[in-house]
Amino acid sequence: MPRRNPIEYSDASPEVRAVYDDIMAVRRADWINNFWKVLAHDPAALRRTWEASKEIMAPGALDTLTKELIYIAVSVTNGCRYCITSHSAAARRRGMSEQQFSELIAVIAMANQTNALATGLDVEVDARFLET
Amino acid sequence: MPRRNPIEYSDASPEVRAVYDDIMAVRRADWINNFWKVLAHDPAALRRTWEASKEIMAPGALDTLTKELIYIAVSVTNGCRYCITSHSAAARRRGMSEQQFSELIAVIAMANQTNALATGLDVEVDARFLET
Amino acid sequence: MPRRNPIEYSDASPEVRAVYDDIMAVRRADWINNFWKVLAHDPAALRRTWEASKEIMAPGALDTLTKELIYIAVSVTNGCRYCITSHSAAARRRGMSEQQFSELIAVIAMANQTNALATGLDVEVDARFLET
Amino acid sequence: MPRRNPIEYSDASPEVRAVYDDIMAVRRADWINNFWKVLAHDPAALRRTWEASKEIMAPGALDTLTKELIYIAVSVTNGCRYCITSHSAAARRRGMSEQQFSELIAVIAMANQTNALATGLDVEVDARFLET
Amino acid sequence: MPRRNPIEYSDASPEVRAVYDDIMAVRRADWINNFWKVLAHDPAALRRTWEASKEIMAPGALDTLTKELIYIAVSVTNGCRYCITSHSAAARRRGMSEQQFSELIAVIAMANQTNALATGLDVEVDARFLET
Amino acid sequence: MPRRNPIEYSDASPEVRAVYDDIMAVRRADWINNFWKVLAHDPAALRRTWEASKEIMAPGALDTLTKELIYIAVSVTNGCRYCITSHSAAARRRGMSEQQFSELIAVIAMANQTNALATGLDVEVDARFLET
Repeated sequence: MPRRNPIEYSDASPEVRAVYDDIMAVRRADWINNFWKVLAHDPAALRRTWEASKEIMAPGALDTLTKELIYIAVSVTNGCRYCITSHSAAARRRGMSEQQFSELIAVIAMANQTNALATGLDVEVDARFLET
Repeated sequence: MPRRNPIEYSDASPEVRAVYDDIMAVRRADWINNFWKVLAHDPAALRRTWEASKEIMAPGALDTLTKELIYIAVSVTNGCRYCITSHSAAARRRGMSEQQFSELIAVIAMANQTNALATGLDVEVDARFLET
Repeated sequence: MPRRNPIEYSDASPEVRAVYDDIMAVRRADWINNFWKVLAHDPAALRRTWEASKEIMAPGALDTLTKELIYIAVSVTNGCRYCITSHSAAARRRGMSEQQFSELIAVIAMANQTNALATGLDVEVDARFLET
Repeated sequence: MPRRNPIEYSDASPEVRAVYDDIMAVRRADWINNFWKVLAHDPAALRRTWEASKEIMAPGALDTLTKELIYIAVSVTNGCRYCITSHSAAARRRGMSEQQFSELIAVIAMANQTNALATGLDVEVDARFLET
Repeated sequence: MPRRNPIEYSDASPEVRAVYDDIMAVRRADWINNFWKVLAHDPAALRRTWEASKEIMAPGALDTLTKELIYIAVSVTNGCRYCITSHSAAARRRGMSEQQFSELIAVIAMANQTNALATGLDVEVDARFLET
Repeated sequence: MPRRNPIEYSDASPEVRAVYDDIMAVRRADWINNFWKVLAHDPAALRRTWEASKEIMAPGALDTLTKELIYIAVSVTNGCRYCITSHSAAARRRGMSEQQFSELIAVIAMANQTNALATGLDVEVDARFLET
């Protein structure tokens, strides 16, 4: 089965264009990245995913840069190259410095290491952690 | 093979006690959690892991709460219950609010979802993401 | 270490050719895909894996298309590009429509999202689920 | 940090009750499982996740039982015990037989095995799979 | 859906008993662990999985202890507690010392850490590694 | 965000060169692979990771080839292509034969399969495994 090609703005249905327009407006960008253009083959998924993303990634009790760092941590752990690349670019646009990127990667790697230690040694959860 | 039991301070060798003392001093805590007490069966691993953790988790270009959130994101994605529980407690001690925890979990879940979309649809990395 | 090259039919031993012949007969195909041709460096693994695959993927209480969809769900979650691509092609040959593919990917992504929610929130299994 | 407790119907806000009511109506059930009751600490996440789930898991080009099987495949691969247990119960309610469950588990296990073979042997994607 | 219960020898069909007998003979053991007794609800899967396991785990170019260590490495990385526990017991019976167990866990944890570094930093494969 | 480029020896700071020199001395090699050259953008991480790797991967109760096999098992399970490739080359330099590589891959794949079976069937840990 061939890969689904990205659907360009000029070829998109009005329903898809409306989502593209909102993505560019919210992000103050003049282009759409491939993730959305490939997802657009399923317009309901495009709309649903974008609405959830807009809601979840908006500034709240956590700022948008912190949310991008969390996103990258998941993406590295899952080995999703597209997601690592696109969200590293997004984090950079939101001000991530080279030093912050280095520290992010170090924490992600450390967590993967200690996850394996805790799992391999079958460490029992301390009762104190479940208390207030 | 039986689980390795936690090594209590009173039963620990001087080498292990020195690490326990440093953990409590750095964390301003009066107890040691099971992770370190089980790891202590291998004193070199205990020392090495603690030294790396101390260095990596210290405040730097990212603050310690942000580092804990990144840690939790990895641990949820790997399904490590011990790590989720212990680092959620650590994040709470560093000031994580209930609202921040809710947003953290929402971002982690969203990232796992979109990682699957990008991987399942085999989305090609946009050239722009690899440029400055 | 260089990648193992695919072993072509013309270069294969009689033992390997016998498996290749059976693959083509069962699948009504006139070619062998790289997975089997690389696995053929270990003829016992080739035979064992093919025999298991033939038995497991045959129509039974679940039809072959459903089995391919399950296969893809695992492969996306593991991030195995080869497996996603080859089994998406197989599902297409067995009649998967574009709409079915869209729904498959949406369910896979949703499940990855809610897995993270259940794990991150450490939700306790309801007693009712373990009853009849 | 203590686990978040499930929020019972009697303790829920009107906003949360409205979602609970819809879950029970759509599922023709008289109870709510822990997943939703724990998620309810974040009412926006509860609503968003339920709306997406209702849309994605509804019968479409794939029937609801097939969607449950795909869900289970992801959950086993991620090792999410809550999700395996709750969606196995859901699949059973939608008619999954013991024989179908056996075949489901066999396909999931086979896919995890061959994913590892393809990844470990670094098998190159056949050009034919990317063509029509 | 309730968990499948282990099928005891006394309740097993002749087909299942034959596999149980072979497991005990090959392992020089007088009991069967739960993995096989639960898998026995699908006698074809029981037979197929046992035959493959017997073939793959037998001493060959790698000795049986080394094979158990590899098995544990996979199981820790996947977070499969049953598999970690049962294969750690098997490794112990084949002579794994406490020191070897410590080194095994350290290597597994290190590999999980550096996997995250290589993935997060998107390191390009050196051409030399693909040459002889 | 552009990928970080490898830092060549000629462009490296004295601190980084000291690590590169030690890597080449310990490995008796005349070149440095990309992993270290990309990690060198964070000199503290370079030093820390190399020191840990040197300590953990040194011959001990387990020989260095066995350690490389364990490393590969983790890397295949995580789907880290860089790590599979570089450590397969390292294993080869330490004497891994083609037959050993075949058996390694077979055990890794088998473990991934049976992990899924144990998880999917929710097999309870046998009390005997937790005893001496």
